[in-house]
Amino acid sequence: MNDTIKSIATIMKDLDNVLIFPHVNMDGDAIGSASALCLALRSLGKKAYVMINEPVPKNLDFLECGCTTTDDSVLDDVQLSLMLDCNGMNRISGREKAWERGRLKGCIDHHSTKAKEIRYDFSRIEPKSAATGEIVYNVIKAMGCEITLDIANCIFAAITTDTGNFQHTNTTSRSHEIAGHLYKIEGFNSKVISALIYDRKSKNAIKMESEVISNLDFYADGKLAVGKVTQEVLRKTGCTMDEADGIIVRMMSIDGVEGACLFKETDSSVRASLRGRSYADMAKAASKFGGGGHTLAAGCTFNGMSLEDAEKAMIPVLIDTVNAR
Amino acid sequence: MNDTIKSIATIMKDLDNVLIFPHVNMDGDAIGSASALCLALRSLGKKAYVMINEPVPKNLDFLECGCTTTDDSVLDDVQLSLMLDCNGMNRISGREKAWERGRLKGCIDHHSTKAKEIRYDFSRIEPKSAATGEIVYNVIKAMGCEITLDIANCIFAAITTDTGNFQHTNTTSRSHEIAGHLYKIEGFNSKVISALIYDRKSKNAIKMESEVISNLDFYADGKLAVGKVTQEVLRKTGCTMDEADGIIVRMMSIDGVEGACLFKETDSSVRASLRGRSYADMAKAASKFGGGGHTLAAGCTFNGMSLEDAEKAMIPVLIDTVNAR
Repeated sequence: MNDTIKSIATIMKDLDNVLIFPHVNMDGDAIGSASALCLALRSLGKKAYVMINEPVPKNLDFLECGCTTTDDSVLDDVQLSLMLDCNGMNRISGREKAWERGRLKGCIDHHSTKAKEIRYDFSRIEPKSAATGEIVYNVIKAMGCEITLDIANCIFAAITTDTGNFQHTNTTSRSHEIAGHLYKIEGFNSKVISALIYDRKSKNAIKMESEVISNLDFYADGKLAVGKVTQEVLRKTGCTMDEADGIIVRMMSIDGVEGACLFKETDSSVRASLRGRSYADMAKAASKFGGGGHTLAAGCTFNGMSLEDAEKAMIPVLIDTVNAR
Repeated sequence: MNDTIKSIATIMKDLDNVLIFPHVNMDGDAIGSASALCLALRSLGKKAYVMINEPVPKNLDFLECGCTTTDDSVLDDVQLSLMLDCNGMNRISGREKAWERGRLKGCIDHHSTKAKEIRYDFSRIEPKSAATGEIVYNVIKAMGCEITLDIANCIFAAITTDTGNFQHTNTTSRSHEIAGHLYKIEGFNSKVISALIYDRKSKNAIKMESEVISNLDFYADGKLAVGKVTQEVLRKTGCTMDEADGIIVRMMSIDGVEGACLFKETDSSVRASLRGRSYADMAKAASKFGGGGHTLAAGCTFNGMSLEDAEKAMIPVLIDTVNAR
C-alpha cells in the first residue's frame, strides 16, 4: 500500500539526518529527483546528502548541486535511508553499508516492479508517474518548501529526460502541469537545462555515432535495424562506450523500422540493446538470452562470446520478433 | 493594436466561408494551426479550407486532415481570407489571387516582424506565444468548439515542433498548460504524433546526415562548426536537399560549439544556414551577405557562386562572430 504524499511529507519534516540513494547507472530522473529533495530538506535546516559510488554522468553533472557524497560516514547519525527512483538492493549495489545505517527505510519510485526483500517504514510507488521527479515535486510542495531555481532545474531535468522531452507515452497531463509551474520560477530557462543535458557531446562522439549509423544493417524488409559499436570503432574515434548511448534512438527514427538492436562489444562480452516501436516484444527476445526489460526497451548480454557469434544467435530471433504481428 | 481573442471568435462565428493561408515552406506550426482552425470552423457547420500551393512536407502529411486545397475557386464566395502563422504577402507567395478573394482580411500570428502592406480587418500578433497553435487553441475554445482528437493532434504538433519539444527559450508556462489540456482528450497519445513527425526518416537520409557530420570542419578553437551538403553527397546517397534539415541541430549539440554553418549547394547558388548558441549574432553575420533572420537562427544565399568561394567569403565573418564576446 502506498503512503500518501502528505504522510511522507510529515515524516520527512520530522527527521534531521537523511541519506538519499538514487539508482546505479544514474539517469536524469535519478540524480535530478535526489538533488531536488536533498536541497528541499536542507532548506528546512536538515542535514541531507545524496549517496553515490560512481561518477555522475558528465551531461548531468550540473544536477549534483553540492548534494552528492561518496563518504559512507558523512552523517554521525542517519535517521532515514531513502531509495529514490528505484526500490531494490540490486539498484543501489556498492552502497549497502551506507543504506543499512538508516534507522528508518523509505522509498519513492515510479518503477512498477517492486522488490520484496526490503521492509520499508514508508514507501510510495507510482507506476503511472512519468518520472520520480513528479512525485518528489509533490512531496517538496507538501513539506511547504519554496521551489528554488536549483530545485526547478533538477525537477525539469528529471521529467524531461524520463519523458523523452515530453514525447513518450508515459507523459501525462501532470508532467506538463508541473513543467508549467516551473516556468513561473524566477530565472527558469528550459533551454539552458536542455543545452547542458543534450548539447555537450564530444566531436569524437558525434563522429563515432556517424560511423556506426553509416554501417547499419537492415533485415526483414527494413523492419529490423542492426548496428555495432566495436572496440575498433571506439579506438579509431577515441570514444568510450557510454558515448554510444544516443545511437539507438537515431536508429529508431528511420522510416519502417519496427525494431533496433545495437551490439556493444567489450573485451569479454557483447551487450545487445534492443528497442521496439509498437508491437515487437523485445523483452521476450532478450529473455531468450537471459536478459529482460520492458516490451519496447530491453537488453541482454552475451558473455565470453564473439560479436559474430552473438549476431548469429540474436538476429534470427529478432527477425522473428519484428515479423510477429 | 491586437484584437482580443473573444472579438476574433465572435467575428469568425459569424462567417460561413473561410480560406486559411499558412506560410510558404510550411512547418508544423503553420499546417497544424491552419488545420486545427479549419476543423473547428467545419464543426460549426461552416465551409473552410487551408489554401496551399506546395506539397505538405512528408513528415507533416497527417496534419492535412482533409483540410487542404490548391483550388483557388474552391469556394463560391470567400467571406474571410485569414493569414496564419505569418502576416505578409511574401509569406503566401503564389496564392495572392486566392487571398484577394476574401471580402474580409484577418491575421493570427506570433512573428514579431509585422508587414505593413496589408490592411487587416482584424489581427492578433502575439510575439510571446511559442506557437501560433497556442493562439489558435484559445480562439477555438472561445468559439465554443469541442477539442476533438484531430484538433488536439494538430495543436500538439504545432506547439511541440515550434518549441523544439518544449526545450527552446520561447516555451512558456502556457505552452505546457495547453499541452496538459490536450492529454485529457480521449485517445490522445503524444508518442504517436511525435513518431509521425520525427521517426519517418529514410535510410538514405540517415546515411547522408552521417556523411555530412563525419566531414565537419571546426574553426576558432572548436567554437565554429561548418558542414557541407554538396550535390555530390546528395547524388551519392540518393537524397533531396530537404532531407538535410536536421543536420544543423546535431552540429549544435557538440560541446563548445557556439556557432554552426551548414552550406547547401544547389545548381545555381549556395545557401548558408546559421545557428548560434548564446551570444553569436548570426543575423548580423547573415546580413553582410544580404540575408537575415533571428540572432540565433539566420541564413543567407550566395547566388552564382561556387561552394568554395562562398566558404571563403563566409567563414572569416563567422570566426569573428563566434569570437566576438
